[in-house]
Formats: sequence, C-alpha cells, structure tokens
Amino acid sequence: MSTTNSTYSFGMIGLGTMGRNLLLNMADHGFSVTGHDKSEKMLALLEEEGKAHNLKGFAKVEDFIDSLQSPKTIILLVPAGKIVDDVIAEITPLLSEGDIIIDSGNSYYTDTTRRSQELKEKGFHFFGMGISGGEEGARFGPSLMPGGEKAAYAVVKDLLEAVSAKVNGEPCVAYIGPGAAGHFVKMTHNGIEYAIMQLLAETYDILKNGLGYDNAQIQQVFEKWNNGRLKSFLMEITKDVFLFKDEKTGNLLVDEIKDQAKSKGTGKWTSQIAMDVEVPLNTIDASVAGRNLSKLKDLRVELEGSFGKAAQIENKEGFEDQLEEAFYFAMASAYAQGMHLLWKASAEYGYELNMAEIAKIWRGGCIIRAEFLQDIYEAYQKQPNLQHLYQDASIQQKLQAGLKDTRNVIASAISTGIAIPCYAAAITYFDTLKTGRMPSNLIQAQRDYFGAHTFERIDSEGVFHAEWNGK
Amino acid sequence: MSTTNSTYSFGMIGLGTMGRNLLLNMADHGFSVTGHDKSEKMLALLEEEGKAHNLKGFAKVEDFIDSLQSPKTIILLVPAGKIVDDVIAEITPLLSEGDIIIDSGNSYYTDTTRRSQELKEKGFHFFGMGISGGEEGARFGPSLMPGGEKAAYAVVKDLLEAVSAKVNGEPCVAYIGPGAAGHFVKMTHNGIEYAIMQLLAETYDILKNGLGYDNAQIQQVFEKWNNGRLKSFLMEITKDVFLFKDEKTGNLLVDEIKDQAKSKGTGKWTSQIAMDVEVPLNTIDASVAGRNLSKLKDLRVELEGSFGKAAQIENKEGFEDQLEEAFYFAMASAYAQGMHLLWKASAEYGYELNMAEIAKIWRGGCIIRAEFLQDIYEAYQKQPNLQHLYQDASIQQKLQAGLKDTRNVIASAISTGIAIPCYAAAITYFDTLKTGRMPSNLIQAQRDYFGAHTFERIDSEGVFHAEWNGK
Repeated sequence: MSTTNSTYSFGMIGLGTMGRNLLLNMADHGFSVTGHDKSEKMLALLEEEGKAHNLKGFAKVEDFIDSLQSPKTIILLVPAGKIVDDVIAEITPLLSEGDIIIDSGNSYYTDTTRRSQELKEKGFHFFGMGISGGEEGARFGPSLMPGGEKAAYAVVKDLLEAVSAKVNGEPCVAYIGPGAAGHFVKMTHNGIEYAIMQLLAETYDILKNGLGYDNAQIQQVFEKWNNGRLKSFLMEITKDVFLFKDEKTGNLLVDEIKDQAKSKGTGKWTSQIAMDVEVPLNTIDASVAGRNLSKLKDLRVELEGSFGKAAQIENKEGFEDQLEEAFYFAMASAYAQGMHLLWKASAEYGYELNMAEIAKIWRGGCIIRAEFLQDIYEAYQKQPNLQHLYQDASIQQKLQAGLKDTRNVIASAISTGIAIPCYAAAITYFDTLKTGRMPSNLIQAQRDYFGAHTFERIDSEGVFHAEWNGK
Repeated sequence: MSTTNSTYSFGMIGLGTMGRNLLLNMADHGFSVTGHDKSEKMLALLEEEGKAHNLKGFAKVEDFIDSLQSPKTIILLVPAGKIVDDVIAEITPLLSEGDIIIDSGNSYYTDTTRRSQELKEKGFHFFGMGISGGEEGARFGPSLMPGGEKAAYAVVKDLLEAVSAKVNGEPCVAYIGPGAAGHFVKMTHNGIEYAIMQLLAETYDILKNGLGYDNAQIQQVFEKWNNGRLKSFLMEITKDVFLFKDEKTGNLLVDEIKDQAKSKGTGKWTSQIAMDVEVPLNTIDASVAGRNLSKLKDLRVELEGSFGKAAQIENKEGFEDQLEEAFYFAMASAYAQGMHLLWKASAEYGYELNMAEIAKIWRGGCIIRAEFLQDIYEAYQKQPNLQHLYQDASIQQKLQAGLKDTRNVIASAISTGIAIPCYAAAITYFDTLKTGRMPSNLIQAQRDYFGAHTFERIDSEGVFHAEWNGK
C-alpha cells in the first residue's frame, strides 16, 4: 500500500513534454499534483524538472489513483486515438462515481462524443479539453478549451484558470460547451493555424522570389509587421526564424530545412467536417492542400524543369505595403471561416458556443493568438449571434480599406507565377460571399438537364423540372 | 408459384427512372430481363414503357428471384445508404452460392468494401458499379465502372458491353478493379464533374458581368467552344440551356432559377477522401466550397450591399479567346487532379487501376465525356504509370501555350472582383506543382519552434530539432 494515500488534488497520466510541463505549471500555482507514466525515463525527468516542488510520479497506475483525493480528477495527456480508450479502460475500474477524467489530447470530436456518453452512463464526469500553446504554453500558460458536463466544471475551474495564459488579467480558459465542444473548437483553432502558417509561407515566397529580398530584408518585414496590427505569435516566431543561424553551415537554419511540410491531421479534419456541415473554408482548404502539395517534391522539381520558374513582380514600388494589406485581408478570411464553422457547428451539434468568449480566450496562450482576435472579440461582443465576421462594420471598414492593394498583390503574383493558393482562396472566397446573384443557377439547370434533379424558381415556391432537350 | 419460373437472364431491383431505363436498354439489346419494385406505380410504368418488349415486373421479391436463371444476376438501382443493405438482407436468403449482386447506386466506397467482404464470406459475387450518363445515358448507353470479383466479371461482360455507350465502336465499360474500385472511380468522376460545372458557372459570370454579354452572346460563346477542343457533354448542354425559354415569363429559364446549388455528396466525398490519402485537389475542393457558398444567399445579398458589386473587365480586347485558353487550362487541372487521386488510391487500396482504360471508358456515355479525354487516354497509353497528367509532353505543350492568357484572365477577374474560386485554384495549384522549392521549409521551422515537431535537413538524413528561442 502506498504511503502517499489520498494526498493529491489532481493527477496527470502521460508525462511527455506537454504533460510534464502542464503538471509543473499546476505545481507552480500551488496545486497539489502527481503524475503517472509507464516510462521510467519520463518519471525521472519529472522528478528532475520538478525538484523545486518535490514532484514524484507513480509507475503503477493503482498507486497513482490511490494517491488522489476524491473526487479524483485525472488529466490525460496521451496521443489521440486508441491509447485514450486504452487508458480509460485501465483506470475506470479503479475510479468511483463522480470522479473526473479530462482528455487533453487532440482527439477527434466524434471520439470525444462517444467517450462522453460511455463515461456518463458509468457515472463519471468527462471533459474533452483542447490545449494550445505548444510546450511553452503548457509550461507557462496555455489557452484551454474544456468541453463536457457543465456541472462538473466547478471542480476544475480554479485549477484551469490558474494555469492558463492571462490577457489583461483575464484567464484564457472558459467552459466551452457540452460533449465534444472543446475538442471541436480546438480542431477549428488548428484549421485557422494551418491557414495562417501557409499564408506566412506564401508571403515569404513573394518577398524572396517576387521582390528578390534576402533573408535580412525578409526578417525586417516580418519584424515590422509584428510591431503593427499583424502582431501575433506566429508572426513573432517567423521573424525569429529568420534570425536563427545553423551552426553546421553558417547559413540561416530555415534555408537548410526541407520544403516538405508534415501534419498531424487536425487541419484536415477541419476541412473535412466543414464540408459535412456545408460551411465553405476556401482558405483553410487551400492550406491543407498546400501541405500535400509540399510532399510532392520530386514531381515539383520535374515540373519546374518543364514549365520554368516564376518571374519577379514587375512593379515593386509600394508592393511591400500592399502586401501587408493583403496579409491582413487573407488572415481575416482564415479567422472568419473558422468562426463561421463554429457558428454552424454550434447549431448543428447543440454546443451553444459563446463566440465572443472563444475569441477572448484565444487572445493569449494559443498558437493563433493575435491582435486581430481583439477585433473579433469585440465584433461578437456587439453581436453575439453574428453569422459571419464580414458582417461586422468595423471589420468591413478594414477589409474595404485594403481591398485594392490586396487585389493588386494577388493579381500580380498570379501574373508572375508565384504560387499563392491561400491568398487566391482568400480573395475568391470574399468575392463569392459578396456576390448577391451567383451563377449557380446554371449548375442547377445542368443538374436538372442531365439528372432530373429539379430546380427552384425565384418567382415561385416548390421544385420544378424542365424537359431541356425537348423530349 | 410463378408461371415464369427461371426464364430471365438478368434482374433489376429498383424501377425508378434510372432502373427502368437501364432495363429497357438491356431489353433493346436482346437480353431477357425482368424487374422488381415494391411500388405498383413503377411496375405499371415499366409495363407501359416496355410494351414493345412485353416487359413485366414482379411486386413480390420471391417471384422475381424465382424467375431468374442460375447463376442469378441481380442489379440494384436503389438509393445509396441503408436501403442497399436492406435489399441485400432481403434477397440473400433467397439466393444460392455463386449468384451475383451488382450495386449500381452511388454508394460510399467503404460501404462497398464492407459489402464485398460480407457477401464473399457468404459465397456470393458482388460488384459495386458506377453508372454515369444520367437518365439519357442509362436508356441509350451509359459509361459503366464495375468493380468486384474479376472471375465473376465474365458472367456480366457481354451484357455490360452491349448496353454501354460506344466510342469508335468500343464499349464504355471495363472491369475496373477489386472491391470498391468501381465506386471509387465513379466518385472521382463526380468530383471532376463538380469542378467542370463550377468552371462553366464562373465562365458564365465572367461573360455576363465581366464582359457584359447578353444571353444570346453567352450562348454563342459556349456553342463556338463546343465546336472546338472544348467539345464535351457539359459544354453541349450548357449551350442548350442558354436557348431554353421559360413559358411562364418568356425569359430564358436559366434566369428564373435560384442561384443556390444542391448536391448529393459525391463531390464532397472526393475532396474529403483525397485529404485522407494526401492528394491535393485544389480545383475540386473549390467547387465543393462553391456549392456551399451558393447556399448562403441571404448573407451574400447583405454583403453585396456592404462591399458593392464587381466591376467589368477593363481590357476586353481579345478577352473571349483568352478565356477559352483559361477554360482549357482550368478544365485540365480538374481532370489531372482526379486522375492523380486515382493513381494514389490505386496504390493505397490495391485497386490496380488501368488509368488509360478509365480515361477510355469516360470518353462516351458519362457526364464528363469530352474531347480532352482522348488526350488523357493517349497520355496514359504512352506512360501507364504516369504519376501526374502534367508530366505528359503533349499536355504540357497545350498548357504552356495558353498560360499567359490564362494568367491574364484570372488576374483580371481578381482585379475586378468577379468571383472565380475554381479558376484561381487551378492556376495556384499549377504554380505550386511547378515550384521546385516551396516555402514550406518555413512551416516546418514554425512547427518545430512551437511544438518541437522536428524537421528534416536538405543535407543530412534523419530528423532534427532546434532550440529556436534560445532556451
């Protein structure tokens, strides 16, 4: 029997970097915590990194659970997928009714919905909680997106608020909604993240190959922009990337890195699910395709040989400032698409999302934190049920002000052959959304022509069919 | 007991328009066929339409199955989804080992994979067969894409070849591959179809709002193009749509149709599955988003009020001919993306697809039949394992010839605000694919910076991590 019987308030299963860092963060804030991992190495690392707090973990799951006060609250930070189910199956026989399990990985939202139901039937409380902020965020203040049983949120509220990032003294955590709401919101966060990262990459390409800038000039652009309205975590680390020397070659490290981007699937899920709920995410879709295009290295090199490289932008005068407008415009489309998806999913799945609250907790701690989220927050504060961010008068003014420059940047890149799938998706998404009468009447005519799928008329209710080919 | 005991060679379950038409087509070609439907109305329609062949259907499934010669071959033309499973569950107790079931609906490919396995275990032969060509095709010659057990294909080969469309005397049907290969290929066909339809709609918008053409001028453009290399079924029906008068208003009917496009999901599936197998489908993705954008009518009307309408193209001189080049270029991207998906899926799922054969059977009968498919067919005949259509020298020459015009059309539309998501996706997809060194090294640097996701170096094997922020 353990000598530490029922001593700790919160427990963590999975002591990899994220788990350890979050546990250390909790200990920093005075919470009595412990951890469990099957790996002796991870336990040793926890002991080493947590020696100021005298932190020790348990190798045996029984001892770990035994050491927790009731209701026992256990946070999982293990890889998404089958492992989450395995861990739940292992610990639930050791738990009692009313105990709380919080899955903090990037679980697929339907898995979280299923686990919520299964665990509720067994009398446990379950949360699916999104965490954003990477290793640094976990250690010193992430953005947290917990979804699950509202009544049980009171048990973990103080803990989560304490460890989360703060903006103007306000915690970057809030109860998101029932079921898988937390994981759905985190997934959408990652979809936006994919788009911003691809936009930064395309911007880098325009600066490098369109304007002929060297790395120092590119660094200065990102640095300058990060001092203005484009200030954001991703802009900040991008400017830093263009300062980081590779010891081996003496070049900037970024130049030594392969141009094949990996992904873990959350961006892809965002695009796939949005198609199911019929929300267009052109910019995010293009960033998912961008990762896949990057993987086709041999094909790209071969086709560059066949078709030639892109040319430089012809009229460079003032182009850098126009590019700032274009980045703002395209970035706005990524956030707007993500928020639109949340708005629709909230109705579809009964998440009852508080859009202003989500924008608010994304302002700090998370990967997509940005000055712009303050604008989004204010837009939804003014109109909590806003369908689309483009409806907000203040956002409209900013988009309108940069529209001419944005069009010029994108048209110029297309003229020269610099590849800008995300930028182009941003403007064509915008242009379609501001087209009162789309040409989709033709699509309906075609569908009725070849498949008798019927059409609707603008002047009468009901569905109609025509004998288009006269038969 | 039925008086028609074991008389017929082939049976059809589901006597809606598609099922009846295919059955009549089979009877036209001298096959002895019968049908089953629970609806008396459908049976009466079959009797009426099939009186020349003295066609009668059975209301009782037992009588229907009893009337078939062994091995009994039954074609299902019922709505995809649960109904297919219900029908299979109803008929399998009445069938014997070696009997053949052919599901000809637009079933989701994983459903077909599952049914293949279940029915194989019970000793039946199962085919998932894609049919394209709409009602007209079913009646007088569709393109058929049967996938399943190769050995059993001999039983249905003559029937399918007889009823299929013909191009230069060759049937538009071939054994596609094992398992769900047929339904996968049909799904991809529909993804390409979505993109071409959206491109035709965007072209209509450019002609109407960018060049200020009236319906008669628009009709003439589509008619002219359909007499050249853009000749295709979808171009042909589009030119006809712009001739069709609405009796009620006296206007062209197309002008009276709502601009909200519906969909049945096959285009969406194509985009979603391509993301799973990591194949970029930018043009097709944009067409799926286009359907969803069209549904946001109220929002679009409101935002047009806020941001204003698109302007006309500034320099109209020669623009119509440039637009033909741009259409060719964008259309090529849609086919190329679909073929690329098939190439990847073939390896991923063991379909062993014959790419030339697929292009060949799409040349007639189906919705995406087009002159251009002859070029695709020849490309894959020359190089059966071609990864991407853009690698073919003859295609390259045609794309290169129209590239400047294509860039001008797309850049001009973006400058004026005419919404061209599919056209823009086509050029940015192409430009990315011909970028030997993408800026995705930055994405890998960012991912390693905030999430320690590691990166690969261009000068050494293995994965690496840097302490980007100096800690």
